[in-house]
Amino acid sequence: MDRDSLVAAVARQGATVRELKKNGGAAADITAAVVALNELKAQLSAMAEPAGPVLNKKALEDLLLRKMFVVPSFEIYGGVGGFYDFGPPGAALKGNLLAAWRRHFLMEDDVLEIECTNIMPEVVLKTSGHVDRFTDLMAKCTKSGECYRADKLVEDFIENLLAKNASALSSAEQEKHRLVATKAESLTPEEMHAVIQEYGILSPGHGAPLSFPMPFNLMFKCHIGPEGTHVGYLRPETAQGIFLNFRRLLEYNAGKIPFGCAQIGNAFRNEIAPRNGLVRVREFQQAEIEWFVHPEDKAHAKFGLVADQILNLFPKELQLTTGKTVQMTVRDAVAKKIIANESLAYYLARTSTFVKAIGIDMERVRFRQHLDTEMAHYACDCWDLEIQLSSGWVECAGHADRSCYDLQVHAAKSKVEMVGTLKYDAPRAKDIVDIKVNKGKVGKAFKADMAHINKGLQALATDDAAAMAFEATLASAGRADLVVDGKSFALERDMWSAKKVTKTFLEEKFVPSVIEPSFGVGRLLTAVFEHTFYAREGDEKRGVMAFPASIAPIKVAVLPLSTAKEFTPVMLALERDLRARGIACKSDASSVAIGRKYARVDELGVPFGVTIDFETAGDQCVTVRERDSCAQLRVPLAKVVALLDDLVAGRVAWADLAKVYTVVEAKKDE
Amino acid sequence: MDRDSLVAAVARQGATVRELKKNGGAAADITAAVVALNELKAQLSAMAEPAGPVLNKKALEDLLLRKMFVVPSFEIYGGVGGFYDFGPPGAALKGNLLAAWRRHFLMEDDVLEIECTNIMPEVVLKTSGHVDRFTDLMAKCTKSGECYRADKLVEDFIENLLAKNASALSSAEQEKHRLVATKAESLTPEEMHAVIQEYGILSPGHGAPLSFPMPFNLMFKCHIGPEGTHVGYLRPETAQGIFLNFRRLLEYNAGKIPFGCAQIGNAFRNEIAPRNGLVRVREFQQAEIEWFVHPEDKAHAKFGLVADQILNLFPKELQLTTGKTVQMTVRDAVAKKIIANESLAYYLARTSTFVKAIGIDMERVRFRQHLDTEMAHYACDCWDLEIQLSSGWVECAGHADRSCYDLQVHAAKSKVEMVGTLKYDAPRAKDIVDIKVNKGKVGKAFKADMAHINKGLQALATDDAAAMAFEATLASAGRADLVVDGKSFALERDMWSAKKVTKTFLEEKFVPSVIEPSFGVGRLLTAVFEHTFYAREGDEKRGVMAFPASIAPIKVAVLPLSTAKEFTPVMLALERDLRARGIACKSDASSVAIGRKYARVDELGVPFGVTIDFETAGDQCVTVRERDSCAQLRVPLAKVVALLDDLVAGRVAWADLAKVYTVVEAKKDE
Repeated sequence: MDRDSLVAAVARQGATVRELKKNGGAAADITAAVVALNELKAQLSAMAEPAGPVLNKKALEDLLLRKMFVVPSFEIYGGVGGFYDFGPPGAALKGNLLAAWRRHFLMEDDVLEIECTNIMPEVVLKTSGHVDRFTDLMAKCTKSGECYRADKLVEDFIENLLAKNASALSSAEQEKHRLVATKAESLTPEEMHAVIQEYGILSPGHGAPLSFPMPFNLMFKCHIGPEGTHVGYLRPETAQGIFLNFRRLLEYNAGKIPFGCAQIGNAFRNEIAPRNGLVRVREFQQAEIEWFVHPEDKAHAKFGLVADQILNLFPKELQLTTGKTVQMTVRDAVAKKIIANESLAYYLARTSTFVKAIGIDMERVRFRQHLDTEMAHYACDCWDLEIQLSSGWVECAGHADRSCYDLQVHAAKSKVEMVGTLKYDAPRAKDIVDIKVNKGKVGKAFKADMAHINKGLQALATDDAAAMAFEATLASAGRADLVVDGKSFALERDMWSAKKVTKTFLEEKFVPSVIEPSFGVGRLLTAVFEHTFYAREGDEKRGVMAFPASIAPIKVAVLPLSTAKEFTPVMLALERDLRARGIACKSDASSVAIGRKYARVDELGVPFGVTIDFETAGDQCVTVRERDSCAQLRVPLAKVVALLDDLVAGRVAWADLAKVYTVVEAKKDE
Repeated sequence: MDRDSLVAAVARQGATVRELKKNGGAAADITAAVVALNELKAQLSAMAEPAGPVLNKKALEDLLLRKMFVVPSFEIYGGVGGFYDFGPPGAALKGNLLAAWRRHFLMEDDVLEIECTNIMPEVVLKTSGHVDRFTDLMAKCTKSGECYRADKLVEDFIENLLAKNASALSSAEQEKHRLVATKAESLTPEEMHAVIQEYGILSPGHGAPLSFPMPFNLMFKCHIGPEGTHVGYLRPETAQGIFLNFRRLLEYNAGKIPFGCAQIGNAFRNEIAPRNGLVRVREFQQAEIEWFVHPEDKAHAKFGLVADQILNLFPKELQLTTGKTVQMTVRDAVAKKIIANESLAYYLARTSTFVKAIGIDMERVRFRQHLDTEMAHYACDCWDLEIQLSSGWVECAGHADRSCYDLQVHAAKSKVEMVGTLKYDAPRAKDIVDIKVNKGKVGKAFKADMAHINKGLQALATDDAAAMAFEATLASAGRADLVVDGKSFALERDMWSAKKVTKTFLEEKFVPSVIEPSFGVGRLLTAVFEHTFYAREGDEKRGVMAFPASIAPIKVAVLPLSTAKEFTPVMLALERDLRARGIACKSDASSVAIGRKYARVDELGVPFGVTIDFETAGDQCVTVRERDSCAQLRVPLAKVVALLDDLVAGRVAWADLAKVYTVVEAKKDE
């Protein structure tokens, strides 16, 4: 559904609700209509707002391909959907972006970094929930065997139905259909099948009946070892490797919590329908941090450093009401419980600073909270960094409070304890329920049923209220029934007892919660491309990539004015000295005009150009050009490399240099 | 076979050869015996020599695991053979090693770098030859279904047979068996089956018969997309992605050849029997360069810079004769045609410099040329960088001249031309065979057989000698038979003609050859671990990793002498200033003795330690300690960060500082 249809749908559904209320409709009907209204509103507010600067998308895509930033993989064989390669400038830009990410997030907070394998055995992803739940519903054409995402088929069918029958259908009927489309993504296979049958939806390709919709797991499966029996998967996220290593990481960190661990690496998702360039691909790179904290103390030591920062927030309440974002300080957002805790808020703030530094237009950035219905199976609160791109608002990073889900399930399955220890400053007295079991008597009485008995006693041991209730029954009746898996076992008074006691503790064990900022590297790059690309004023054909110098793939272009032999030694010396400082440079000694050379390096986003001209031999100076202003300064050869180093590192600003060196007037075509 | 058995086998086979010659054996028998002798000698010389410094491997392995350099993946689930994770210091070491690799190889020679996908569609790897040839023979136990590498079964069986029947078998019989074992790796399935039958080899696990041995492809297979019909593989090497992108890369490089393109990334091999830590794993990282050159001009512009360098070479001739390496300059090696060309030799020299810089002991390094029988299907000359480790000489990098194999097969399959253009300085006259085809007449005469005819004419067009012979027949007999796939077609004189003419050319097209230095990152790391690990003199339990500062995961340890509160601000200020310069540091503010703190950071290979003590508040100085000498200097706080920066970057040497700053006597336990 496009934005305009949605706006209309919200209006109509609002009218339906009002009508129902006015006419005294049944409470259940009113509730259902309100729920439908809220869902439509949420859909609408999550949509791209019309606006943002106009992007010449075709020109950008042409540049990205032609300059080999990003190219389709296996292109000479026609490519395969959802796979892209990074060419030289793309790979360098990505490398620089990741280096900036490491400096910003890891070095700053002493976050550890590890590197785990891409292939994982089934047990890991079964335990994490991905084998069972990382699925989309797929329906097959019974004639051709072609596969479709079932929810997309339903949405498309209903959109088409409404478009063709706009006048024939009543407003209420239209809403009913629309609601089905809205809910398609969350249907069970049975519900989906019923919808397909009800509407008589056929396969788009052959008009043949569709198979019963089945969950299609998005993970790539393979087999480890020669037997073919050991199933493995390519990881769908890098996070799991960190959880598996938690115990060793905690030890490496000398037992201290909070601490963070990061991983940068590939993740793989066998999308049924990859699309939209780097936004929905089958192989991509993630940069994830798992920040482990005490579940009841998610304060962050450096919160004060970010508390005054203002964020553009889109909390779930506003998505369901006004549909507008709100700007507030990080401090207020936490104080008002809009963001759940300091650690989560700290990372939202740090992410905001980071995306600004890599060249993202902050007018097109928001942090959107997940609605309760869209949260992943492991998360308890989640905020997406969304960046407005030509295709709408796109999630480029997630910030999830995964609670202690992952550590808990892996600990339970592997039988390896994964806990932190909080040592108290002073001993603490705590009321606990002290349970005593007479193992001899219990064993004698229930020899054959000990598995059940142990399970039942274990349940009592972890539930104080249940234990005290059981104790009360034993105390009053002299026996009590332990019910396990439908079976009942009568325990006698002398087999088991519980009482409340006060004990002193020096420390406690806890399963840490984890706050996870997770970045999609390809999506961030897409945002950088779209937000930094512009056409040179007055010449729409001259594209410029305005990368910040910190992440630009090439920092300096060395450009002899012509092919005159005398320029070569100067060019080679500049190259040598720049490289000695680790500054990536590129020379263009070809015979084309200097204006054309500038245009070439503008497309690569090179922030500074050095031109060697016929005066250089005399005045021992070169011209330095700044990419975006095209301003040029005359700088002594002896100083230019150190100066460029300072410029690239951001130690000096271009504007300040103009006060020191002579400004050169650029000629017409430069 | 171990080294001693091999030495004995060589002696015995030598005797056999001498006996045959003495007794006037048949020429074929003598040749076969000599071939067998040479193979045994080659095996022997490729083996680890007894020697090299003694390594306390257990202590090293314990340190690597305990300090989380390298840990088994999925350890809490018991691990899976051939998969390892890099913990914080391991990942940092690897990252620094790769950064050094990029500076040394890529920045130095303007080599492009790209990043391709891990998953590749079948057509790519079918064309490259990997689907058909990247295999080991596997035999299954017919009872349990367990799989074995067939060559290893044969080798083990024969070794066992010889050990048990040493006295019962004649020398000649023993040699016969040994030869079977030696050749096991290169047998066809049918030959392998025959050997298994002949010896009656059964499955080791169940003593059951073995299946017919089948080639087992070492690539991990998966399915792309939901249909399950589109086969993909995880790449077994990163090189293919570069070949696929050749055309765009050449364009990016403005059409100039020679040029290089590199890729660092994962490769996957489903080993039947992974072993030996990071040496034979199922998922690993490669750093590869493809250096494209004109096939008839493999000179290197920078050859002069490396020509005087001395390499420890092990050419194939010496492997088959003396078994000893030879030291010679790169210049001589090329002049004597021991190394095939300048480009290959240039990279051997650069690799040599590189491994020295990352801490490898050059006494345990050699470059071994592949024997003709062991070359990969794509290579025409190959030199392995071998490093002597505790498990013997291990290949850590390969330097292959892959000729134009890959570009040719991909161009043929994809129908995309992959050629370079050599523009001549001056027009060149060349004799060529000019062919004229009368298409009308040919078409009329062979309407139904045009596919055959075209194939035959195409063959003539690419073979000057054949074309001129055909022309001669036509000229003399007036007709000539074109034979295609066993069919014969009589062409008349007026249908086809050829003549030698001299034409002038301004340029030529050529399929580039490619020189490939390819590094196994995990193997290089293993070598760094083994060659830098030592025990502190006088205390065998105190391990030290003597990483060069350039690749050390942590450069500086900040160590307050005790937990005294006054040390904290100094420690935090040092951390802040070190990080501002991008210097990785680690503090230890725990209550353990300073000697213990030093021991901890020695295990992590931290080259420099800064100790804050009770005198710091007074003299505003700290003590700087060098890891390997344990020497300590008193340095002003105001200067220490800049000094450490210089030390880490290698701009100043420790020895020179001792002349400037006061030497501090270390206490007993430091």
